[in-house]
Amino acid sequence: MDLVALEEIKRLKYRYLRCLDGKDWDEFTETLAPTVRAQYGKLVFDDREQLVQFMRKHMGKMDMLTEHHCGHPEIDIDGDTARGTWQLSDTVLMPAAGYLLRGAALYEDEYVRVDGRWLISRTGYQRTFEYHVKLEDMPSFLLTANRWA
Amino acid sequence: MDLVALEEIKRLKYRYLRCLDGKDWDEFTETLAPTVRAQYGKLVFDDREQLVQFMRKHMGKMDMLTEHHCGHPEIDIDGDTARGTWQLSDTVLMPAAGYLLRGAALYEDEYVRVDGRWLISRTGYQRTFEYHVKLEDMPSFLLTANRWA
Amino acid sequence: MDLVALEEIKRLKYRYLRCLDGKDWDEFTETLAPTVRAQYGKLVFDDREQLVQFMRKHMGKMDMLTEHHCGHPEIDIDGDTARGTWQLSDTVLMPAAGYLLRGAALYEDEYVRVDGRWLISRTGYQRTFEYHVKLEDMPSFLLTANRWA
Repeated sequence: MDLVALEEIKRLKYRYLRCLDGKDWDEFTETLAPTVRAQYGKLVFDDREQLVQFMRKHMGKMDMLTEHHCGHPEIDIDGDTARGTWQLSDTVLMPAAGYLLRGAALYEDEYVRVDGRWLISRTGYQRTFEYHVKLEDMPSFLLTANRWA
Repeated sequence: MDLVALEEIKRLKYRYLRCLDGKDWDEFTETLAPTVRAQYGKLVFDDREQLVQFMRKHMGKMDMLTEHHCGHPEIDIDGDTARGTWQLSDTVLMPAAGYLLRGAALYEDEYVRVDGRWLISRTGYQRTFEYHVKLEDMPSFLLTANRWA
Repeated sequence: MDLVALEEIKRLKYRYLRCLDGKDWDEFTETLAPTVRAQYGKLVFDDREQLVQFMRKHMGKMDMLTEHHCGHPEIDIDGDTARGTWQLSDTVLMPAAGYLLRGAALYEDEYVRVDGRWLISRTGYQRTFEYHVKLEDMPSFLLTANRWA
């Protein structure tokens, strides 16, 4: 078992997630292979440029507070490639639009090592469930912290 | 510190959880010792057959969307046995019954290595909290993805 | 990569979190350097005594059920010091006060190894978001388990 490569791949994923929720699209780009293919539910992307452009446009909105939490890594490494699954719990809060999303999913990723650095070469998930609620159903709802405010 | 055994035990737990939420009871069974004892709150099981039978009957329902997320592994290994704690965050959504459960718990597990493979020999948790809400309190509730639909 | 030190630091964090949610302030104290500095949002603490005293007083309340879930460790070790980030998802339930809090944050920690044992020497987080809801908005809300009841 290559424990060092395993740790490197986990860190790659954590960095990808930190940049996603932190809206840091330059560092986010560095976690992806140029030819990455991604599929999140019905959203499909054929390369890194397409994916990052979408993220900048839609996830970069200051009224979209996101939390993507991944755990349960089951990763198999084969030389300079690897594949694995993760469980995702995500929350998306849109205070101005008055809307809250909660979802659960199983991520399936592939990774490739190029010049000693692991990159995400394929990613995507299948939803277990996802639901929306309007904040108007919770009249007492109060946003007490917003990193982007 | 036996880092390989530690990684194997973590993967065992992640597999157990993936099969639980994925309702894959055949693979779920493979993670358990035949003599496994389990206690989830007030639910007690004395062996694997009893436990898996219950899961098939009650968690296999297509109207029960579950997310069991475990983290914070604190695992001590002693030869071919091990014990450890995990934190659990779980969400159970029953759209037809109109009901949402959220819980937090501390898992306490024991593991045994048989023919080189780790199995769960004892498992269970103590709730920190658990609450239910009826979906009728959130009239705007909308299920936008359901793996089992 | 020092995988053993990395595992020790992760366990230190998990222990800190288990003691926080389990309201075990004696063991909680053992995870902290005497000179620890902590900053949780606007709350600032200049040493261990101040921090633990606050926790005993405010988090020790039996009407405060907490779940602090950390994942995504990105930890860099340099000899006997280390620093790292974690993602935090937290839920605080106050059934008597009729109040629920949900938050997400990025933790930034520093660690120090003293006599072979890692301790938290600096900790704190920046909120991504935090919100409150009054339980009166969910009339069907039912607490079905409470560790402290």
